[in-house]
Amino acid sequence: MAIITLTTDFGLKDHFVGALKGAVYKELQEARIVDISHNISPFNIQECAYILKNSYKSFPEGTIHIVGVDSEATPENQHIVVLVDGHYFITANNGVIGLIISEIKPQKVIEINLPNTVNGPFPVLDVFVKVACHIVRGGTLEVVGKPFEGLKDLKDFSPRITDDGKKIVGSIIYIDHYGNVVTNIQKSLFEAYRKGRSFELHARTSSITKILNNYGEIVNYDLDRTKRKGAGDLLALFNSSDYIELAIYKSNLKTVGGASTLLGLDYRDTITINFL
Amino acid sequence: MAIITLTTDFGLKDHFVGALKGAVYKELQEARIVDISHNISPFNIQECAYILKNSYKSFPEGTIHIVGVDSEATPENQHIVVLVDGHYFITANNGVIGLIISEIKPQKVIEINLPNTVNGPFPVLDVFVKVACHIVRGGTLEVVGKPFEGLKDLKDFSPRITDDGKKIVGSIIYIDHYGNVVTNIQKSLFEAYRKGRSFELHARTSSITKILNNYGEIVNYDLDRTKRKGAGDLLALFNSSDYIELAIYKSNLKTVGGASTLLGLDYRDTITINFL
Amino acid sequence: MAIITLTTDFGLKDHFVGALKGAVYKELQEARIVDISHNISPFNIQECAYILKNSYKSFPEGTIHIVGVDSEATPENQHIVVLVDGHYFITANNGVIGLIISEIKPQKVIEINLPNTVNGPFPVLDVFVKVACHIVRGGTLEVVGKPFEGLKDLKDFSPRITDDGKKIVGSIIYIDHYGNVVTNIQKSLFEAYRKGRSFELHARTSSITKILNNYGEIVNYDLDRTKRKGAGDLLALFNSSDYIELAIYKSNLKTVGGASTLLGLDYRDTITINFL
Repeated sequence: MAIITLTTDFGLKDHFVGALKGAVYKELQEARIVDISHNISPFNIQECAYILKNSYKSFPEGTIHIVGVDSEATPENQHIVVLVDGHYFITANNGVIGLIISEIKPQKVIEINLPNTVNGPFPVLDVFVKVACHIVRGGTLEVVGKPFEGLKDLKDFSPRITDDGKKIVGSIIYIDHYGNVVTNIQKSLFEAYRKGRSFELHARTSSITKILNNYGEIVNYDLDRTKRKGAGDLLALFNSSDYIELAIYKSNLKTVGGASTLLGLDYRDTITINFL
Repeated sequence: MAIITLTTDFGLKDHFVGALKGAVYKELQEARIVDISHNISPFNIQECAYILKNSYKSFPEGTIHIVGVDSEATPENQHIVVLVDGHYFITANNGVIGLIISEIKPQKVIEINLPNTVNGPFPVLDVFVKVACHIVRGGTLEVVGKPFEGLKDLKDFSPRITDDGKKIVGSIIYIDHYGNVVTNIQKSLFEAYRKGRSFELHARTSSITKILNNYGEIVNYDLDRTKRKGAGDLLALFNSSDYIELAIYKSNLKTVGGASTLLGLDYRDTITINFL
Repeated sequence: MAIITLTTDFGLKDHFVGALKGAVYKELQEARIVDISHNISPFNIQECAYILKNSYKSFPEGTIHIVGVDSEATPENQHIVVLVDGHYFITANNGVIGLIISEIKPQKVIEINLPNTVNGPFPVLDVFVKVACHIVRGGTLEVVGKPFEGLKDLKDFSPRITDDGKKIVGSIIYIDHYGNVVTNIQKSLFEAYRKGRSFELHARTSSITKILNNYGEIVNYDLDRTKRKGAGDLLALFNSSDYIELAIYKSNLKTVGGASTLLGLDYRDTITINFL
């Protein structure tokens, strides 16, 4: 039986998430529901997309992802279900799909049109749950609506290459729970332009000349304990999603701070890499 | 197999929730446990009731709801299990049942009296889990205790009708994750007294003359984008639980604020509707 | 099928937890995953140990506990799987096992050495999930690596007994969601030295001469309501883990405060018990 995932800005205090799960279980006694996140910043589809982009592929093909962020249907944001890369996304047509999956053409995009549903304030409960359960039961997408041509194709900023390939100008696309700062510069792009050269990565007043493969690589275990780099030191690495990320080793936003607070970096700030 | 839901003020950091779930799985390998909320404000049975009232009906009949707020047994708050509206609630007799379900008479109220249990500091683990698993296994309520007559019947404030039906004086019963302000005025009551008249809803210094059916209705999509109402504008709507709610369109309590912060409204504050 | 539990410092916003669960379901369609906590303070293995110590035994024997705190492999912190007290723990060798289980000798300790895994920044996904699923499928530990002798044996502070057994000097090991202050003095130790004597427990400027068995015992229900102790009053009790704990009855850290804030007590502070 296919999994249903939930990614919302509902938070974890109110009744919304519980009501949603109850409604799924009422339709499908054996449902498997997985919370991806309910702590997306309200109405922030960029954050929502970042989190789904970096988690949906972990799930088996055929998984159904309910996107509960900015989910009301409006004349400009239809309710849609999209089959792309083997996964189903049920969402409002607010641009989030283009941000999650930019390179792959959707196999199917259907505008949802269920009989007997009102356009109320809780469409995730009234509409998305019904569509999700229908798909889990093996129903076809054509039953829930008609093919749709107007999928919004929002794009996130891409890094710019300047100075004849000697410079990459990227930006910060996410700041995580540790205060780690994720850039939009992917390892593959970096290596394609690097061509073996040395480089300097600049973020505000900080600069770094090495990109690690994990956080702990910053510690030189050959040195005496007192001479090693360690907790509190700045590093850059290729993170688990293959983006270049800046981190403070063993950071904690509530105590010692993280890369975002200590370096004064925020969403959309610029990161520059100069090849030497 | 019946679902067990959890609604507590345990928070999501400590070991309490994990210990609880482990204990259920130890008794029932195939248990299905659903978190409704663990972020109820400590000992706040009004909040707990609001959240359960608005989520329990989503679940299939026969669901068992563990209420882990103010759950210690005292000489005045017995441990009870209540069967009402087809659902089981396991709770201390602290008044929460009356707040969740005011109109329906319980089918059964049993005072829990398990052999070999001590009156310790974690009754949800020591007592409620055992009762819940007993019910899931199809056991009768009579095995866990005796019929109980003293169910506390706490009532929440109801709106008052004054001026020969020309005025409804309600109050705020909940502020949600978006800062939306939920009143105790239900759509049915509003319409019964409105009788087609115009009205003015007053909340502190704000007033509103229209109640929408969803949030997005505030945007007039016929107008040019620059002339539309939108993010940041105040609206009133019948929310998904059919209460009148005040909201700021696309609010965010951590950035731009919500209805509660921008209008200066708090729990128990008065909302007045005057029919013209 | 054995349960997999998750205890991490990943937080509940980012994609980490969702990605992890997806990966488990991809390997094991019928997996049962239970969140113990994702809100451990970043890199805080003491907190992680406290939470696991007080929850793992609730789960059935054979449960597999993934420990996602400070989980990178380094030359000093190998990836290990430990079978102890009937439970499996998959973790970095950072000392957490000794803090969770100090008295019981592990049955097996294996250093994880999987073919074709890189030492990347997200070992819980790349390594721990694979090992957990292998164990759930009934695989032997010997397949994932070789017996390991270097298990780090970190110990938490123990209470000191001084003045010929007339004094116990303990310390605070945890502050919970309610601001309750948990000491490292267990009921059994306390009773062994008490020998029926009266005592005074001192915590900063507060002192207490009675230790209760549950929170509500502070209320004397024989007295008139206005004369009873109740909400806001300080108490000591043997908590559900049999530690001595200081609490403010019906505390709330966000409003009236809890024992930690009202008494000015913090992690590692001293608690003294004098027998009279």
